[in-house]
Amino acid sequence: MEENKDNNQFQITDALIENIEHLIDSKTDKKLVSSFANYHYADIAEILDELTFEQAIYIIKLLDSDTTSDILKELDEDLREKILKVLSAKEIAEKIEELDTDDAADIIAELPEERQEHVISQIEDAEHKADIQELLTYDEATAGGLMAKELVKVYETWTVAGCLRRIRGQAKEVRRVHSVYVVDRDEKLIGRLSLKDLIVAKNDQKIADIYISNVDYAKVDDDVEEVAKIMQKYDLEAIPVVDEYLKLKGRITIDDIVDVIREEADKDYQLAAGITQDVEADDSILQLTKARLPWLFLGLIGGIGAFIIMEAFETRLPSEFSILFLFTPLIAAMAGNVGVQSSAIIVQGLANDDVKGSINNRLLKEMMLAALNGVVLSIFLFAFVLIWKQDFLLALSIAASLIAVIIIAGLIGTFIPLFLHKRGIDPAIATGPFITTSNDIFGIVIYLMIAKLILGI
Amino acid sequence: MEENKDNNQFQITDALIENIEHLIDSKTDKKLVSSFANYHYADIAEILDELTFEQAIYIIKLLDSDTTSDILKELDEDLREKILKVLSAKEIAEKIEELDTDDAADIIAELPEERQEHVISQIEDAEHKADIQELLTYDEATAGGLMAKELVKVYETWTVAGCLRRIRGQAKEVRRVHSVYVVDRDEKLIGRLSLKDLIVAKNDQKIADIYISNVDYAKVDDDVEEVAKIMQKYDLEAIPVVDEYLKLKGRITIDDIVDVIREEADKDYQLAAGITQDVEADDSILQLTKARLPWLFLGLIGGIGAFIIMEAFETRLPSEFSILFLFTPLIAAMAGNVGVQSSAIIVQGLANDDVKGSINNRLLKEMMLAALNGVVLSIFLFAFVLIWKQDFLLALSIAASLIAVIIIAGLIGTFIPLFLHKRGIDPAIATGPFITTSNDIFGIVIYLMIAKLILGI
Repeated sequence: MEENKDNNQFQITDALIENIEHLIDSKTDKKLVSSFANYHYADIAEILDELTFEQAIYIIKLLDSDTTSDILKELDEDLREKILKVLSAKEIAEKIEELDTDDAADIIAELPEERQEHVISQIEDAEHKADIQELLTYDEATAGGLMAKELVKVYETWTVAGCLRRIRGQAKEVRRVHSVYVVDRDEKLIGRLSLKDLIVAKNDQKIADIYISNVDYAKVDDDVEEVAKIMQKYDLEAIPVVDEYLKLKGRITIDDIVDVIREEADKDYQLAAGITQDVEADDSILQLTKARLPWLFLGLIGGIGAFIIMEAFETRLPSEFSILFLFTPLIAAMAGNVGVQSSAIIVQGLANDDVKGSINNRLLKEMMLAALNGVVLSIFLFAFVLIWKQDFLLALSIAASLIAVIIIAGLIGTFIPLFLHKRGIDPAIATGPFITTSNDIFGIVIYLMIAKLILGI
Repeated sequence: MEENKDNNQFQITDALIENIEHLIDSKTDKKLVSSFANYHYADIAEILDELTFEQAIYIIKLLDSDTTSDILKELDEDLREKILKVLSAKEIAEKIEELDTDDAADIIAELPEERQEHVISQIEDAEHKADIQELLTYDEATAGGLMAKELVKVYETWTVAGCLRRIRGQAKEVRRVHSVYVVDRDEKLIGRLSLKDLIVAKNDQKIADIYISNVDYAKVDDDVEEVAKIMQKYDLEAIPVVDEYLKLKGRITIDDIVDVIREEADKDYQLAAGITQDVEADDSILQLTKARLPWLFLGLIGGIGAFIIMEAFETRLPSEFSILFLFTPLIAAMAGNVGVQSSAIIVQGLANDDVKGSINNRLLKEMMLAALNGVVLSIFLFAFVLIWKQDFLLALSIAASLIAVIIIAGLIGTFIPLFLHKRGIDPAIATGPFITTSNDIFGIVIYLMIAKLILGI
């Protein structure tokens, strides 16, 4: 995660922002337009994120729709929402016209419902409008919700020369051509061609003779995460999307999948840290609280549970054994750490589809692993307590319970995500506070019970 | 993370594996070859992962080098290592010949050093050999280590027609053509062309007139994670890699970047869970222990530290206050949870480059956030202790310390990753056991000090 300054790479500097603010204040529009002409739209979006809202709006109104549409697409969601609020439906429609259908539909989907129709009605290009309306009907977590309508399609009956001619026409609409999809006369997907194949082929060859019939595809209602897995596994750069009758409806490109992978990884990471998905460091305190407080509350309830259990033991314990309670944070911490380790590796394995074998084998392996770790750590703890407190039975009971707690914490950490996954629940919720809290309680109960047994209280 | 059965997608079934095992046992090679012909190499790699080592070797020796080279590339690293051990240098070299230079270099790099040269010397194609040798000189964490030598290169002086003719020749060597790179006569990168541009252009146009001069590139020694960020930000599907003199040396495609992103996310996730990078659920118990034990040991040391601190307090506390110790697991758990939440959001923000503003602002925001969470949780805890123990001062001291502990835990969780990042250390190590352990100890100390103060002990 280290940074490596690259002389080729755009860097926002204070001087750059100051210069732009100065140009805005003095309304030197020409200079502003010409200085922005040198930047990539993703860089301009970053600059706008650093400006005040009024300054950002000034720039958006100043630049042409072709550029601002791309900038809008890249902006931070909160800023985009604010900007869209002050633009008229007509202005938004103009920008939407410039965007690919998938990006256009994503932006429209963010608008309040009553504005959506208003903006759509202002889109002039009838085909673009119909495409966007179709995309809005799909769930955003499905292939249909992620795909774009822009693609290059040829019929199997065409020749290579005719094909190249037609592609020249279609390709102007499509920013990047990944694959050429081959359909039969019912628009059913039957194969694909790469542009390379087309260039390498002879002009008078028939598409039917050169296309590759073994084509991977997704269905409109496939889960995007499944599509991401398929594209990664087969190293695909684009995948066609078909409806239930195998009719070609759109295509998904790998750059959209990169975003899905990133978001999925971020979501799992946040869940493991006890943060409900979909917040960023720059979100408002209220949003962050909503994402974090429920998990902290779970932890608090667990802590109160641990207190109640310990109190029940304490009232029945002669006071000379109160030293036992001084080890409860250690036991709870170890139970929590082991639980998080075991659950994280299972959650990650499930996400990457590389958890093989039965639940029983998995539990057996985790038990052996936990036992190994437990023995090493317990020997150390035993030695410490024996030297520090000169009490063999105390040292034995604490060390023995640590082994038991580590094994049981490992089993719980392994079992819960596997169980949730089997029941169709996202196992990622089982890491973090959920597993630490339950393991804290189990750990303390096991510890106190074993200690009572060994010490003969 | 839910699974969506797709009738288009390959699924390993017990029946399939049994059938293949049966074919291997009965040595019906023809049937084996014909049944594998229907599978994608990534699917065959999955099947081999399910077979015994002897069975996997049988298949590898049976299929042709063209297929097995791709299978090898997709195999689980441990299985690949075992298979390469039993293949001769000549056999490995044959498979290497079939692979793209980047995959070929990756596989050779996995071999023991003394075998590497032996295998390389057996590669017949002199250009392929030189390319692989060049790639092996770069660090694997740099653009040079990730790039492939296969690319389509044209000189600015060529015409479109001449270009298409030459590309037909070059393109046969390149599996997928993303971009055509334009160089001057010194081989310096000066721009790019998409195949689409080339198809859309007229035959007699000069490349110099149609190429796009504004081209993103990486340098051979750029960090791969930086390259991944640039490619994501600018939605690039391929990026050319140049040396210090801007000479074109290779290209990186987005599918390799997808792997970098995935691995980076996995590494951060594992670190947050207290697992040192680079283990999978299916690794051996010893490997998993090596990855997990050091972090558990850190937790144990922390627990012992907490014990020593508590004991020091206990010996000075009248015994009627021993109830205070029953709340230490609660306090430690809350301090740990808050610390993990704060650090995770900072680590993620740093990874995604969206942590803006100064450290001070960030700490101020976290303080307000933690205070808000702390107040809500403390009111609840206060009510519980007051009702349960009927002791106002006890309830007050526990609730007041909870607020203080949460705020300080949040600040520590925010500060440590920011500090590590500033010092050039991967902040991801600051989440998980590291932050929970330090916060456990700080939390308990703060709690006992505040309780002593309020209870006037």
